[in-house]
Amino acid sequence: MLTSPSDPTVFQRRESEARSYCRGFDAVFSQAAGSELIDADGNRYIDFLAGCSSLNYGHNDPDMKQALIDHIAGDGIAHGLDLHTEVKARFLTAFETHILKPRNMDHRVMFTGPTGANAVEAAMKLARKVTGRTNIVAFTNGFHGVTQGALSATGNGYHRGGAGIVLAGVTRLPFEGYMGSDIDTALMLEKMLGDPSSGVEPPAAIMFETIQGEGGLNAASAEWVRRVARIAKDHGALLIIDDVQAGCGRAGSFFSFEDFGVMPDIVTMAKSISGFGLPMALMLVRPEHDKFGPAEHNGTFRGNTHAFVTARIAIEKFWADDSFQEQLKQKERIILSGLAAISEMVPGARLKGRGLMRGVDVGSGDLAAAICRRAYDNGLVIETSGPNDEVVKILAPLTTPDTVLRKGLNILMDAVRDTVTDMKFAAE
Amino acid sequence: MLTSPSDPTVFQRRESEARSYCRGFDAVFSQAAGSELIDADGNRYIDFLAGCSSLNYGHNDPDMKQALIDHIAGDGIAHGLDLHTEVKARFLTAFETHILKPRNMDHRVMFTGPTGANAVEAAMKLARKVTGRTNIVAFTNGFHGVTQGALSATGNGYHRGGAGIVLAGVTRLPFEGYMGSDIDTALMLEKMLGDPSSGVEPPAAIMFETIQGEGGLNAASAEWVRRVARIAKDHGALLIIDDVQAGCGRAGSFFSFEDFGVMPDIVTMAKSISGFGLPMALMLVRPEHDKFGPAEHNGTFRGNTHAFVTARIAIEKFWADDSFQEQLKQKERIILSGLAAISEMVPGARLKGRGLMRGVDVGSGDLAAAICRRAYDNGLVIETSGPNDEVVKILAPLTTPDTVLRKGLNILMDAVRDTVTDMKFAAE
Amino acid sequence: MLTSPSDPTVFQRRESEARSYCRGFDAVFSQAAGSELIDADGNRYIDFLAGCSSLNYGHNDPDMKQALIDHIAGDGIAHGLDLHTEVKARFLTAFETHILKPRNMDHRVMFTGPTGANAVEAAMKLARKVTGRTNIVAFTNGFHGVTQGALSATGNGYHRGGAGIVLAGVTRLPFEGYMGSDIDTALMLEKMLGDPSSGVEPPAAIMFETIQGEGGLNAASAEWVRRVARIAKDHGALLIIDDVQAGCGRAGSFFSFEDFGVMPDIVTMAKSISGFGLPMALMLVRPEHDKFGPAEHNGTFRGNTHAFVTARIAIEKFWADDSFQEQLKQKERIILSGLAAISEMVPGARLKGRGLMRGVDVGSGDLAAAICRRAYDNGLVIETSGPNDEVVKILAPLTTPDTVLRKGLNILMDAVRDTVTDMKFAAE
Amino acid sequence: MLTSPSDPTVFQRRESEARSYCRGFDAVFSQAAGSELIDADGNRYIDFLAGCSSLNYGHNDPDMKQALIDHIAGDGIAHGLDLHTEVKARFLTAFETHILKPRNMDHRVMFTGPTGANAVEAAMKLARKVTGRTNIVAFTNGFHGVTQGALSATGNGYHRGGAGIVLAGVTRLPFEGYMGSDIDTALMLEKMLGDPSSGVEPPAAIMFETIQGEGGLNAASAEWVRRVARIAKDHGALLIIDDVQAGCGRAGSFFSFEDFGVMPDIVTMAKSISGFGLPMALMLVRPEHDKFGPAEHNGTFRGNTHAFVTARIAIEKFWADDSFQEQLKQKERIILSGLAAISEMVPGARLKGRGLMRGVDVGSGDLAAAICRRAYDNGLVIETSGPNDEVVKILAPLTTPDTVLRKGLNILMDAVRDTVTDMKFAAE
Repeated sequence: MLTSPSDPTVFQRRESEARSYCRGFDAVFSQAAGSELIDADGNRYIDFLAGCSSLNYGHNDPDMKQALIDHIAGDGIAHGLDLHTEVKARFLTAFETHILKPRNMDHRVMFTGPTGANAVEAAMKLARKVTGRTNIVAFTNGFHGVTQGALSATGNGYHRGGAGIVLAGVTRLPFEGYMGSDIDTALMLEKMLGDPSSGVEPPAAIMFETIQGEGGLNAASAEWVRRVARIAKDHGALLIIDDVQAGCGRAGSFFSFEDFGVMPDIVTMAKSISGFGLPMALMLVRPEHDKFGPAEHNGTFRGNTHAFVTARIAIEKFWADDSFQEQLKQKERIILSGLAAISEMVPGARLKGRGLMRGVDVGSGDLAAAICRRAYDNGLVIETSGPNDEVVKILAPLTTPDTVLRKGLNILMDAVRDTVTDMKFAAE
Repeated sequence: MLTSPSDPTVFQRRESEARSYCRGFDAVFSQAAGSELIDADGNRYIDFLAGCSSLNYGHNDPDMKQALIDHIAGDGIAHGLDLHTEVKARFLTAFETHILKPRNMDHRVMFTGPTGANAVEAAMKLARKVTGRTNIVAFTNGFHGVTQGALSATGNGYHRGGAGIVLAGVTRLPFEGYMGSDIDTALMLEKMLGDPSSGVEPPAAIMFETIQGEGGLNAASAEWVRRVARIAKDHGALLIIDDVQAGCGRAGSFFSFEDFGVMPDIVTMAKSISGFGLPMALMLVRPEHDKFGPAEHNGTFRGNTHAFVTARIAIEKFWADDSFQEQLKQKERIILSGLAAISEMVPGARLKGRGLMRGVDVGSGDLAAAICRRAYDNGLVIETSGPNDEVVKILAPLTTPDTVLRKGLNILMDAVRDTVTDMKFAAE
Repeated sequence: MLTSPSDPTVFQRRESEARSYCRGFDAVFSQAAGSELIDADGNRYIDFLAGCSSLNYGHNDPDMKQALIDHIAGDGIAHGLDLHTEVKARFLTAFETHILKPRNMDHRVMFTGPTGANAVEAAMKLARKVTGRTNIVAFTNGFHGVTQGALSATGNGYHRGGAGIVLAGVTRLPFEGYMGSDIDTALMLEKMLGDPSSGVEPPAAIMFETIQGEGGLNAASAEWVRRVARIAKDHGALLIIDDVQAGCGRAGSFFSFEDFGVMPDIVTMAKSISGFGLPMALMLVRPEHDKFGPAEHNGTFRGNTHAFVTARIAIEKFWADDSFQEQLKQKERIILSGLAAISEMVPGARLKGRGLMRGVDVGSGDLAAAICRRAYDNGLVIETSGPNDEVVKILAPLTTPDTVLRKGLNILMDAVRDTVTDMKFAAE
Repeated sequence: MLTSPSDPTVFQRRESEARSYCRGFDAVFSQAAGSELIDADGNRYIDFLAGCSSLNYGHNDPDMKQALIDHIAGDGIAHGLDLHTEVKARFLTAFETHILKPRNMDHRVMFTGPTGANAVEAAMKLARKVTGRTNIVAFTNGFHGVTQGALSATGNGYHRGGAGIVLAGVTRLPFEGYMGSDIDTALMLEKMLGDPSSGVEPPAAIMFETIQGEGGLNAASAEWVRRVARIAKDHGALLIIDDVQAGCGRAGSFFSFEDFGVMPDIVTMAKSISGFGLPMALMLVRPEHDKFGPAEHNGTFRGNTHAFVTARIAIEKFWADDSFQEQLKQKERIILSGLAAISEMVPGARLKGRGLMRGVDVGSGDLAAAICRRAYDNGLVIETSGPNDEVVKILAPLTTPDTVLRKGLNILMDAVRDTVTDMKFAAE
């Protein structure tokens, strides 16, 4: 049989200009394991991007890998629409047993199309259907995806500019801390919802990320989240927590909100839920709001059978007891310590984030880009986020061995130091 | 390690009410190969649904399966965002060599989120961006997905009813044949676009499926498609052909439109593009319209590395020469012959569709459902489509051996005969 | 006290570029009576424009004039918000006695802001509120105003282009005869509303003018109107007839639809309802749909007290018995005869309209404009309408004496003859 | 000729439920002069509502009255579309000479449909056209009208609830003081517009009333207005000041903003601009933004010829020199003194407003309603405003003689005292 060559000139010739990460990280990658990426020339990179938090358990986890190979080799179903399959039953059982029940969550699982955006679209539609309202409150610097419904809730102007149509049905309010620490944005939300003449319609839902991944690692406090949850309840709105990026352990616990004393009506999940980086997304919804009719929100790839195999392993392996979560604390300390050192090198730098979703605001997008470029030259894949891309963001696999974590942080520290030094020279 | 059991009661307990196909086909499936599905009790079913045309090459094609296992076993990248990867380069090269070049298509490939809806969202956004216009012309009975943008273009009222917000930016016009064969709907389109007072804004795009998969297998003629393409050009609108369901050989050729003498500005693909049923979608766009900025339309799962492996094999195996396409003609004859026999059993029945996307309109959704239910009882998975679910639709894998195809058609014929007979008895 | 001069240079200096009629009819007008306009230099013009049908009873009708002077002189209320006033009671009583009761109409009267657009906005909002639906079916070449809601229903692309925002919530379908006489557009409406997959949501209302004043004097037949009324009823939609231009006798009877055997749920009126050209508009609504809460749709100038005075006189004087309506038939004959003569002068010309809302489609906007310009030079004010301004439109006051009507028609005939002759010379 | 009787039962029988003011003030009014209303039984009322500020110069001002009678008696044009007329030229000249020029305003005048809402619709459309942007920033508790475009900018939930369609294209931000005096809402506006990821699109315009008439008499400070004007300029947005209610002297000067050191790009005016309570509205726009094409925003009643007559007199009589404006200061003192007395009677009461647009927030809508009801029983027409109708609002004609003003205030003071006393008794 034919084997088409791997010709790197084809990207330039045939891939759309919309391609993006490959511009900053321009190697042609071929293999990956754990926290390492390997390119076609055999160069190795420590991965502090982890598929934007889609690879929380690292690349090609050996247990998931074996289970997936066994499944494929045994002619296990590869595509099953939303039919009942053995592997889906196993995943749901594991998810019920190890995730939902221990957290007293009675939520149902809806498999949407396998992207975070699709889960968000489903959540917004469902909240509107359940409440009979249209308005959804979202926040400054929130990111929820770029399909039209999700994009309405996304704050990023570059992405919104691509909509080509007026984005409606969302009221934008300031996230916690947006106006500085002395201005209480939850109070503002409460005031506007309580005022019949504020111009803010009673919302179907209030939706946010507890840690804004793309928006610059702004982390909401437990108290703010609790107050917003209470305000939502008081005003008949559903609480939607978009845990696409911050979920699956990234915040230090399975759900980013589980220590906050709130019970969201809807949770959206994607990215690391498959465990292996495979496309999969789901929406959790409390039974009383599980009101879509059969296939009312549908899609060919709702549910991904291969992903059910690996997702089940991920849950059984990492979340059946507390050991993994305990390890995360140690890794968080290592990251914090590295970031603290970095922040001392950059005047005015601020630490951002929570759990293992951390970064440092270096004050400018140019500086952050220069740092990441230099780190990449030295074998570390790391990206920026924030309104002006001014936050260097660490999204290392949660399974990264401490030594690798330290090694990556060292590369980053060197990159920061050298970049800052260069800039000083350039300025003189 | 733990292994969660496959407990079928979990579906009722934990899966959302939105689940759908599993209601009609209530087995718990575990394996599949070629054109057969096998359930947990070992029962075998001929599959005339094929993941709604996502499994055009059948389940677990051995060559794709082996390549995928090899890739996984060798720690090939599982998730690569939109980084350059060897497997993506190979896929693009194969796609260029065997699909685009032979058809004189200079299109670029944009990997969107791995669902047809996402490709459609990207296409609509891009057409709006390129033209600076908002309006998109779509047609009666069209189906393009259920995220907000795509849903605006979808005709189905049940799905539209789930939007929870006014669906804007789309003008709906009658598809070919909608008002009967003597009313020229292309002329109507032309008249409305040419009339500055028609209330139809100059469109960014005219978008349609050449064969409406969910809308009842309405097949547009080459002449109508050519005329609409010409009208689009005359009015500065992009031509978008949504080949998500009709593409990848389903219509008898790789693209559903390739014998029609048109060159769409944008083509959306998903479903069978991965070859293996894995989530993958892409948008083809002519270079002059490839105007998204980097990541302007983005998403974590744009591009699916595992799918690149199988998609490349699918192209190399089935589309490198004409042999597969030749075989399709024979299979089309077999299907047509079976459907002709069926249509004689049902008074007023009408044949629908084109290529290997065929069906019979039996006049009522109740009758169609009864037929499919009986066929399922006899080991055939087959579904309906159409505004009132009145069309029994055959979407058998294109690789189905002739004997299996005939066997499936025989089950279907028996189901029709018996159902019609029962109904006559019941009526007497 | 000061008296500011009438300085015509002020228009150029201080009036917005949006000014329009004054560009074609560039005199400075000062007085008017009956069917005549008089400019500041004492030139007299026959008025076949009549304030776009706002002056159906001519300028400064002596009875209305006297009543209005008496009202003002006696310190009658000039502005009364929506308070009860004696003059409003008198108007309502006259309207009930001479208009509603004889036509078996149980409608309530809602005084909206004093423009047709405002009445249309109120009608659209009310239909949406009553039905809980959003979609409103409007037709090609319809004109309903240019505020955002009304503009959504207006077909004219020039006006729609000024919206600056996507116009949503309206489905556009072809008016009677739009696709030629052999294509039944009511059937198309019925088919699309009856098809759950057509993409046309169940409408809150179907709204149209029985004679499209701005759209080119397209007159719907009684049968088409009846069928559309029936379709609306069958599909739970309100029937809104926009009688802003065709009402108040313009079609030969008080309402344009009163001989058609339909009972609209909502009727919008403006233009000639005040009788005197004063701003006034109202919406008629059947009691079961009179569902706005107090002031839910409001506005400072809802109801115009001066207009109540003249509107009452108009009704008492012209509509208390049949004599006026009888006279209209004779005038209609005169107009028709003139237009028939004109149409013979222009190859391919077509008569348009109904009642005393008539015109001739001369095939091009340039020709129509040239005719009107020449007529104006000879003392006749007359305008065009239609998608390309290709229809010369007669909207003479209904009270125009036969001699004046004939005199105006003669000017028009001469203008047509001379323009056509000039064009022939120019072409040779 | 017939004369229809003034039968008050007709209101119940035939006027829509949307009627409103007549519910609270249930007399049938017949005459009015100066600051007095007279009902059909000869009862006299002091008018502190003044047509919601449409009668700033009182009822039936004798000079305007005589000029209007003369105009009508002399067959002056009553309705002139947007033709040039002598009376329009006179009005424009007066407006230019006495209003625009002395204030160094180079604005053009666009006559829109004769309602404030229509002027606002035109302003929003124009700002969008000029900038090519869609978003308009409006504020909490703002009121701009109830047609669809204007309603999008209006804050009142009761009115928004009547829309029946999602209201899009407006970002809502807190007005000055909304979150208390220590939170700087202009800073918030600046921060959100300056943040590319805030989710607030670059606006076409920032629009507000300097004193929110319906929203509770919230008065913006000169500093806040200047800062917002600067922010608008910095971000390429037009500054629209909606002076429909606060203009024409109500704030103590002709324009409410004229002492603030800002030059709005667009100003909307209606209500008292005619001087006599006749429907009239206009939009002022700086020449560089006067970009509507001819009739692009149109309407039959744009310009009201009778209103031009009275509007000119109003300007010549009251604004040709400073004497009227000087008198307003004395009246403001009288009102303030009365309100100060009132606020001492109601625990927690707060004075609201600016200029002669003043009121007192009595803390609850029930109390405010009871006060107004009692005042009405004693011959004073006065209304409430505010999100919960908790502000008793004085909108007396600006021409009210001091004695009448004091008399009205005394009735109001008695009403407050008695109502508070009654409430205390009831509570005990």
